[in-house]
Amino acid sequence: MGVGIEDIKAEWVEGLIEAVGGEIVVTTESVREEFGKDRWHAASVPQAVVHARRREDVVATLKFANEHKIPVTTRGAGVGYVGGCVPTQGGILLSVRKMDKVLEINPADGVAVVEPGVILNDLQEAVRGKGWYYPPDPASLKECSIGGTIATNAGGPRCVKYGVTRHYILGLEVVLPNGEVLETGGRCHKNKTGLDLIGMFVGSEGLLGVVTRATLRLIPHPEARAMLTATFAEFEEAAEAVQTILNSGWQPSGLEITDGFTLKAARDYLGPETLPDGNAHLIVELDGRKDTVLRDLEKLHQLVGSCGALSVDEARDKESCEAIWQLRREFSYSLRATGLIKLNEDIVVPRSKLVELVKFARQLERDTGIPVACFGHAGDGNIHTNLMVKDYDTDAAAREKADAALDVLFRWIIANDGKITGEHGVGLAKKRWFKDAVTPVAADVHRQLKATLDPNGILNPGKFIE
Amino acid sequence: MGVGIEDIKAEWVEGLIEAVGGEIVVTTESVREEFGKDRWHAASVPQAVVHARRREDVVATLKFANEHKIPVTTRGAGVGYVGGCVPTQGGILLSVRKMDKVLEINPADGVAVVEPGVILNDLQEAVRGKGWYYPPDPASLKECSIGGTIATNAGGPRCVKYGVTRHYILGLEVVLPNGEVLETGGRCHKNKTGLDLIGMFVGSEGLLGVVTRATLRLIPHPEARAMLTATFAEFEEAAEAVQTILNSGWQPSGLEITDGFTLKAARDYLGPETLPDGNAHLIVELDGRKDTVLRDLEKLHQLVGSCGALSVDEARDKESCEAIWQLRREFSYSLRATGLIKLNEDIVVPRSKLVELVKFARQLERDTGIPVACFGHAGDGNIHTNLMVKDYDTDAAAREKADAALDVLFRWIIANDGKITGEHGVGLAKKRWFKDAVTPVAADVHRQLKATLDPNGILNPGKFIE
Repeated sequence: MGVGIEDIKAEWVEGLIEAVGGEIVVTTESVREEFGKDRWHAASVPQAVVHARRREDVVATLKFANEHKIPVTTRGAGVGYVGGCVPTQGGILLSVRKMDKVLEINPADGVAVVEPGVILNDLQEAVRGKGWYYPPDPASLKECSIGGTIATNAGGPRCVKYGVTRHYILGLEVVLPNGEVLETGGRCHKNKTGLDLIGMFVGSEGLLGVVTRATLRLIPHPEARAMLTATFAEFEEAAEAVQTILNSGWQPSGLEITDGFTLKAARDYLGPETLPDGNAHLIVELDGRKDTVLRDLEKLHQLVGSCGALSVDEARDKESCEAIWQLRREFSYSLRATGLIKLNEDIVVPRSKLVELVKFARQLERDTGIPVACFGHAGDGNIHTNLMVKDYDTDAAAREKADAALDVLFRWIIANDGKITGEHGVGLAKKRWFKDAVTPVAADVHRQLKATLDPNGILNPGKFIE
Repeated sequence: MGVGIEDIKAEWVEGLIEAVGGEIVVTTESVREEFGKDRWHAASVPQAVVHARRREDVVATLKFANEHKIPVTTRGAGVGYVGGCVPTQGGILLSVRKMDKVLEINPADGVAVVEPGVILNDLQEAVRGKGWYYPPDPASLKECSIGGTIATNAGGPRCVKYGVTRHYILGLEVVLPNGEVLETGGRCHKNKTGLDLIGMFVGSEGLLGVVTRATLRLIPHPEARAMLTATFAEFEEAAEAVQTILNSGWQPSGLEITDGFTLKAARDYLGPETLPDGNAHLIVELDGRKDTVLRDLEKLHQLVGSCGALSVDEARDKESCEAIWQLRREFSYSLRATGLIKLNEDIVVPRSKLVELVKFARQLERDTGIPVACFGHAGDGNIHTNLMVKDYDTDAAAREKADAALDVLFRWIIANDGKITGEHGVGLAKKRWFKDAVTPVAADVHRQLKATLDPNGILNPGKFIE
C-alpha cells in the first residue's frame, strides 16, 4: 500500500501503446488514481490503465507485460470490499469493464454466455425476462461485474439453497499470463473431461489468468417466493430457530440473522416502529410453486412461532418480499448512519457456532470499546461481522486499535474452525491472516501452482500468494 | 493394457514391506489379479497390493514409491466403469477400501466427516437416519466408495437439482505424491480462503493425490417426494416435454428420459404389460413438503399431459416412487438380458441436442448394425449411450467394428459441443478421445499441473495426462 502517484510516465508505456494500440491505454493521472482503488481503503496508482474491448486486447497486454515482467492487475467494476484489484506494485491496470456484452441467453441449453464486464444484475434481469434464473446474488449485484464475481467466487443470501458462483460456471475462456488462450468446459451441464480447470480460476482473485468469456449455467426461475420475518428476545433463540428449521427438512432460499446492535441502529435510523421488539431478527425465504408456497409458509410460520419468536410476520407477495429485502439492506445503511466506519468482515463459522461468534463479538466490544455488529447468512454460518470504528482513515491511534481488534477476531475465527472470508476474497484486507488460515503445505501448493501458471509473477502481485 | 501376470516378485517389494509393514502388503497372485481391474474390461496386474488402514499407511506408501519411482494406483471399491483404477504400469495398487469409518455426522454444522472407503449408500442411510441428506447418487451407490465418487466427481439422477459431488465437498485431507499431507477447506459452508484446492482434487481420478478424509456438506432432507412417469409416441415429444417442464419454472429433483430401443428391451424382459405404449419414456421427480408436493404433482401432471403424452402416471407415496426408480434400474438389466455386451458411454450434449443425439444414434445403428440404446439424465443432457455388442471381449472383428463405431460417436459428440464423459471419468475407456476433447492449451495446462504436483509421475500413470 502507499505507492505514491508517479507523474513520470513509466519507460515501458510507449512500448505498451505500440503493443496494444494507443486508443485503449490511458495514463491521465486522474484516471490512474480512480483505477487504483476499490471499496476498501487501500490505494495504489498504476502507471497505465488498459481498457480492453475484446480478448485480443487482453492477449496483447499480457504478452507485452509478461515479456517485460510488468505487473498486471485485472479489474472488473472495482466494487470489491478487500482491495483485491488494487495494483499494489503499480504497472498495468487491465480493466475488462468495457467487455460487457451478453453474447447469448439460451434457455434450451440452460446457459448464458457473457463477457466479464457485464453487470450481474443486468444479466439476471435479462435471464429473468426469459423465465430463467442465475442465482448468485452478492449485495453488490447492481454494481459488480460477472468477472468480479468469478474472481471472488461470490455468494449472497440465496447460496444457502443454490450454492456459490462456482456451481454456475460451465465454461471459461481465460487468457494465461503468457498470452495463450485457454478454453475449458463448455455449455454442457455435466463434464468430467480431465481436471477441473474451471475451479482453479474461479475464486483465484486475478492471480492466475484473465477471464474473457464465461458460460453460465441457468436454472428455471422458481414460480413464486414467500417470506417470514421473526424477532426473538435474544440471538441464541434466533440461532436455535435456524437449526430447528433446517432440522425439520426445510430448504429455505434465504435464511438471514441479525443481532441486537444492528437492530438498535436500524431503529435509530428508520424509527422505532420499523421493527417489533427483540434483540435478534430472522428472515426466512421460501421459493416454489405459486399454488403451494403460501401453504408451505403457513407451516413454517407455525414452526417458527413454536421456537419462541416474539413476533412472526409473513410476506405473501412479491412486493412484501421486496420490502423485506429492502429492510435487510437498510440494516447496512443504518450502520453507516451511525457515522462510524464499518469494517465489514465476511467471516464464516461452522453453523453450530453462531451463538459463540456473537458472544465473542460482545466480549470483543467490551474489551476494546469498539461496537461490533453481526448479521448475515445464518444457514451458511457466513456472518458479516462489522467493527464500527470512528475515524479509521484519519486517526492513526483509532486505526491501530481497530487493527488489533481485527487480529483478535481473526485469531478467534481460525482457532474455532472458521474461515477468514466466505465471499469477499482475501485481497489486501485479509492478507495478513492468510498464512495462519491455511496450513504450510497448502501455502506451498498455492506457491507451486502460481509459479507454474505465472512463472514471472506478473498477475496481481502482492496479494495472498507471495 | 495387457501387462502379463508376473510371478516374480518385484525387487522393491521387500523394501515396501519394510516401509509400510508386512501385514498390509499382499502379493498373492489371486489378490493382485482381483485388484487389477474394475467394471471395465481392461486389466493389469500390480506387483503388490497395499491395504491402507489409516493415513500413515498412505503416507508411508507414497514416500517409498516416490523415492523409488514406483507407480501407485489408488483404488476405492473398484466399481468404476472406465478402468480408472487399473494399474496400467503395475507397481503398487493402493486400496483405501478398509479406511471405511464414518468419523462424524453433525447436523448442527451440516457436515459429515468420512474416510474414503466408506460405501456411499451406507453414509447416505446414516445421514438420512438423522433427517439429513447427501445428494450425489450414482447408480453404483450401494457399491461405490466415497473416495471413488470424489475421484470421478460422481453425479446421478438428482444432480439436475442438487449438483454433482464437487458441490458437497467442504474439506479434504490429501496425501500428496511426496508423502506430505495437505489439509484444505474445513467444515464451513462457504470459504474463499485462497485458491480452490479442493476443486483440483475432486475429479482428478487419482492423478494428483490420495484422499484420506473428506468433510461433506449435508443439506436438510426434503420431507417428501412424488413422481410422474409418462410415455410418448416418439422421443422428440419427450425431449420437448423436458424443455416445457423446465421453461415453466419447475426444478425437478429427477428428469430421466428413455428411448424406444431400451423400452423394447424392457418390454421383452419384463413383459409387455410393464409399460404403456410409446417409443419414449419420461420420469419426473419432485421433492418438497409433505402437505404440498402432491398438489404440485397434479399441476405437473396437467402440464405433461398437455405435451402430448400417451400416458401419465403418478407415484404419490414412497413405495410407488421406489417402484419407478426400480423400473429405471430394470432398463439397464433389460439391456443386459439381450445377451449383448453394453458399452455404456456417459456422454453429455447441450440440452437442446437431445433429439439430435438420438437421431444420430439411430443413424449409427443403421450404418453399423450395432444396436444403440439411449437413456439418462435429460435435464443435464447427460444421456447414457449404450452400444450393444455381441462378443466384444472374445471376437476381435466385433470389437474392432464396435471400437470404430465408438470413434464415430465420440467424433460426433466433440463436433456438437458435447462432452465425452459426464460422470464416469476418462479412465482408460475414454483416453483415446481425450486429446480431441480438450484444446492443446488445456492439455498443456493439465501436463503442467501434473508435473508440479507429481514430478516423478508416480500416481496412476498411463491415464489421461501423459
